[in-house]
Amino acid sequence: MLAVGVDLGATNARAALIDVDAGKVLAETKRPWPSHDVAPSAVASIVGTVVREVDPKNERVGVGIGFAGMLRGWSGVVVIAPNFGWKEIDFRSLVRAEVGERCELYNDLNAIAYGEARYGGARGVRDVVCVYVGTGVGGGLVINGQLYAGATHLGGEIGHTKVIPGGRLCGCGMRGCLEAYTSGRNIQKRAQEELRGGERSLAVELAGGIDHVHAGFLDEAARRGDVYAGRLWEEVSTLLGMALANAVTLCNPSRLVMGGGVWQGAPELARRSIARLFEFVNQPSREGFEVVDTALGDSAGMLGAAALIAGQPAREGEG
Amino acid sequence: MLAVGVDLGATNARAALIDVDAGKVLAETKRPWPSHDVAPSAVASIVGTVVREVDPKNERVGVGIGFAGMLRGWSGVVVIAPNFGWKEIDFRSLVRAEVGERCELYNDLNAIAYGEARYGGARGVRDVVCVYVGTGVGGGLVINGQLYAGATHLGGEIGHTKVIPGGRLCGCGMRGCLEAYTSGRNIQKRAQEELRGGERSLAVELAGGIDHVHAGFLDEAARRGDVYAGRLWEEVSTLLGMALANAVTLCNPSRLVMGGGVWQGAPELARRSIARLFEFVNQPSREGFEVVDTALGDSAGMLGAAALIAGQPAREGEG
Repeated sequence: MLAVGVDLGATNARAALIDVDAGKVLAETKRPWPSHDVAPSAVASIVGTVVREVDPKNERVGVGIGFAGMLRGWSGVVVIAPNFGWKEIDFRSLVRAEVGERCELYNDLNAIAYGEARYGGARGVRDVVCVYVGTGVGGGLVINGQLYAGATHLGGEIGHTKVIPGGRLCGCGMRGCLEAYTSGRNIQKRAQEELRGGERSLAVELAGGIDHVHAGFLDEAARRGDVYAGRLWEEVSTLLGMALANAVTLCNPSRLVMGGGVWQGAPELARRSIARLFEFVNQPSREGFEVVDTALGDSAGMLGAAALIAGQPAREGEG
Repeated sequence: MLAVGVDLGATNARAALIDVDAGKVLAETKRPWPSHDVAPSAVASIVGTVVREVDPKNERVGVGIGFAGMLRGWSGVVVIAPNFGWKEIDFRSLVRAEVGERCELYNDLNAIAYGEARYGGARGVRDVVCVYVGTGVGGGLVINGQLYAGATHLGGEIGHTKVIPGGRLCGCGMRGCLEAYTSGRNIQKRAQEELRGGERSLAVELAGGIDHVHAGFLDEAARRGDVYAGRLWEEVSTLLGMALANAVTLCNPSRLVMGGGVWQGAPELARRSIARLFEFVNQPSREGFEVVDTALGDSAGMLGAAALIAGQPAREGEG
């Protein structure tokens, strides 16, 4: 069975024709966005282009789209998509006009979580939590081998669990979210502010200037014993480790799959966060539990979205 | 279809014969424990007695037992049961010798959550989180209308999610657990210590002495403007509200069912905690979400355990 998986990232649209039974990518393509503020209809049109490129003979059973944004259940409506600056857009209708009715939107981390559980780092595992620490922080839940999207498709939003009541301001408008402390964007912004404010760190030299400091340079500095980076990583790893531990304590998965640009580009932070996770987690939940890195990398979302559309009954636009 | 639900509480064993389709209690009985340190074989024997009392004609399809303790998956082994002081006890084998093979142990909060979702405060709702704040703090998850016990039956353990890294010592041996701040036992212990240490509160007068202060009197004092109780409730409601909000943000249920002795006996604390929950929760998750009180009260666990055993395939002792 063949299906097309689409990933709509910050800089481009990617599509792959997937052999769903084998979990194999048969063809792949991508197109950059023409501008920063790309309109919904233009994005839908580009989706049509990349889908036709990877599946010119229309062999697919459907098109699954992993979308970085909050969706309203099965309605196909994007509630908010920070990457595109969209609010309340009936994006699925636009895409269906391009690629046909058998097309569904999934939260990007839901698609990734399902991809990893079906084909990747948690293959064959029934109960999986997947968390990506990148530009933002998100997650997805696989329960009894099925994606659990949540009652309104907002399940797995670990980035917006609160770690410090009334704490740092998050991009979502609330305070104290995990993402406000641990996302690449927020780590970078905070470190640059503190370094401009007089803090000193080896990360500035490594980066070639404060403006270029990001999580990767801070990680290198922390590894080399830099005091500022070490203190920052102590705080960030404690909060990330606590939030991961709490998700494991609450959901009792047998595997946690970790990925994302910050997680993969800051191995010292990842190492410390895992140590904290095992320190904070409900101790009996450690039995039979393990943490692994993403095995599918950038293809996880396309693989997961294709598998989801292939396995899913056709649905109408219920709320 | 008839099944027997059993609840093994701190002071007694209760059993009910349940009409599973109607969710109706047809007969009910209870027996107190003979002593504080009651042995597993004595508890199993009492379970046999109460089961035969409510179902003398052996009309049941099975016996479901809600058990306040941590279980090891479907093995029937109790990992730890603080109420009885047990560790690593193959309790299911003892009970099966008394009541027959069709008998299963469930975590008490799992049984309660399923009972509320099937018959009570979340009847007909697919995705439910249930949290009890009583002597301890526990929870259960119902996903797609089915109990989600977790990979090793430790799902829903919200009481052992961490709210303050390195914070107050919990009965589980770890620090900073929600339960260490918000369970009846810990609230009472802490308040009595602080009042003996020189804090003053109206709760002492209401209770007739420091030794009698508990969450109910502190709640009454807070309602009347008492400074100590108000400050304590501010802290407890902030941490409880945050933990509940995080569970809702992560699991995206459409209903949260709340119960337990402290929750029901301290309405001012409950009111403040709900306000905090709505303040801290991922805002889009509020759509279509509501908080309700337990509708089945003390019978929730027996109803849920009976429904679970009636709906479940017979299982062998896999891990």
